[in-house]
Amino acid sequence: MFEQLGLIGCGLMGGSFALALKKAGLVKRVVGYSKSPSTTESARQMGIIDVGAPSALLAVSGADLVVIAVPVSASEATLRSIKQLVTPNMLIMDVGSTKREVVDAARAALGERVGSFVPAHPITGREVSGIEHANADLYTGRQVILTPTERTLTAQLDKAVAMWGALGCGVQQMSPDAHDAAFASVSHLPHLLAFALISSISSQEKGREFLTLAGPGFRDFTRIAASDPIIWRDIMMTNRRELLAQTDLFKRTLAQLESMILSGNGDALEEVLKLASKARTRWHMTSHKPPKH
Amino acid sequence: MFEQLGLIGCGLMGGSFALALKKAGLVKRVVGYSKSPSTTESARQMGIIDVGAPSALLAVSGADLVVIAVPVSASEATLRSIKQLVTPNMLIMDVGSTKREVVDAARAALGERVGSFVPAHPITGREVSGIEHANADLYTGRQVILTPTERTLTAQLDKAVAMWGALGCGVQQMSPDAHDAAFASVSHLPHLLAFALISSISSQEKGREFLTLAGPGFRDFTRIAASDPIIWRDIMMTNRRELLAQTDLFKRTLAQLESMILSGNGDALEEVLKLASKARTRWHMTSHKPPKH
Repeated sequence: MFEQLGLIGCGLMGGSFALALKKAGLVKRVVGYSKSPSTTESARQMGIIDVGAPSALLAVSGADLVVIAVPVSASEATLRSIKQLVTPNMLIMDVGSTKREVVDAARAALGERVGSFVPAHPITGREVSGIEHANADLYTGRQVILTPTERTLTAQLDKAVAMWGALGCGVQQMSPDAHDAAFASVSHLPHLLAFALISSISSQEKGREFLTLAGPGFRDFTRIAASDPIIWRDIMMTNRRELLAQTDLFKRTLAQLESMILSGNGDALEEVLKLASKARTRWHMTSHKPPKH
Repeated sequence: MFEQLGLIGCGLMGGSFALALKKAGLVKRVVGYSKSPSTTESARQMGIIDVGAPSALLAVSGADLVVIAVPVSASEATLRSIKQLVTPNMLIMDVGSTKREVVDAARAALGERVGSFVPAHPITGREVSGIEHANADLYTGRQVILTPTERTLTAQLDKAVAMWGALGCGVQQMSPDAHDAAFASVSHLPHLLAFALISSISSQEKGREFLTLAGPGFRDFTRIAASDPIIWRDIMMTNRRELLAQTDLFKRTLAQLESMILSGNGDALEEVLKLASKARTRWHMTSHKPPKH
């Protein structure tokens, strides 16, 4: 399907993407670049990329597919640095968790070549980061959200849909703003709460002792607090308006629960817990069957 | 080790305890009682209890081990109802998640027979409830916290320590107050936050749509929000002082993070996320190797 992938950012997301694409037989050659030369070299030694490039621009040279897997705040500079080699036949994608800022960065950086850029957010990830955790199955069965704009070229959008489908993903399209509102509620806020909980416990004199007693509920609730701090700083900063709006709604609900607990209103508390428990029991993660090989 | 277990409350925790005790060959006979006769009958048909009793008192008759696995708010009434058959040779335990209120209830209900009661909190559980999810391995490898008081009989405490050890659990002792302070931070607050998040998302017009997009981070973060609402109403109500104190500390941390996000202070935000991510990465759940069979 593709001759050459230019991978910019050889971390968990980028490395796993290269492995997935190779495993599915969708690419002949992967040229990779990471800001740290030692990461690029590791990726090459691990066989995740075939050739290491000394710059983002050189990673793009000769590629018909370019994937940018860097923290959101580095998107604009990255796109600017490759602009001169972007062609209308090239499909360029990111894999970031916020979309409004990346779309704006792409417009600013690529100018009239922005049509080649298809903003993408695969709903996957892990609490560990780095090329050493790259895994060919990270994307299998997951949802991918594409947020094309009016300037996106249909041909590139169609290629992106087909490519993710061939990797075993379900593909949905929505606007960057609708994307950012939804993920503020179901992803960015949970991460903020998990980081805040760990921070709050750690800051207490007895925090260390408390943590030795924590069980499986705590383990799962806080798994995402081990996530990459740079990636999450960028997500929170670039989606701040929606994130803070969701945080406000959350705090209002929390305050209601606190007041029920404080006033001893067990019936009201039970009612809220019952509805939440039912809603969570009914919920199942949307997933997709992997393609047959 | 025991002739007869009197099990009061045939739910996930009680049923799993009976199965674990049988599997380890530590009991000859289990007599069970649940408030709902159909639950008692199901437990009998599933072989989790050998005999169904029509009352808590009759479940205790002839038992040398009694386990009370009911919501915390039902503890005092349950203990009162069995008081006349409590003997100094009997080991009575609960398995509840808060300990101060249970200890007070036991003093009030059992009077001078309170020495037979060893308050216990096994650090385990699941987001599903009911006898149909009972599982002989629910307790294996977990920690159990015992919170004896000055009136607890040493003989019963020693039996409790040996019994949990034989089930493959690590056993720790602490005061009821120290227990409640620790679990407010690492268990009760996370549950409150998870319930509040689901409630906050569900109350939004687009909440349903948002939920269809949620991925594995959300799945794990909110797993505990599916927990039994009655059990958790009681835990929150009976540990309200410690829970609200932890909630206040948490809200202060959250407010600091919000203000960094709002003011665009990415460096400060990154620093907090980095420390939290490190702390969570370092953390590992305390677990114990199961005994050799």
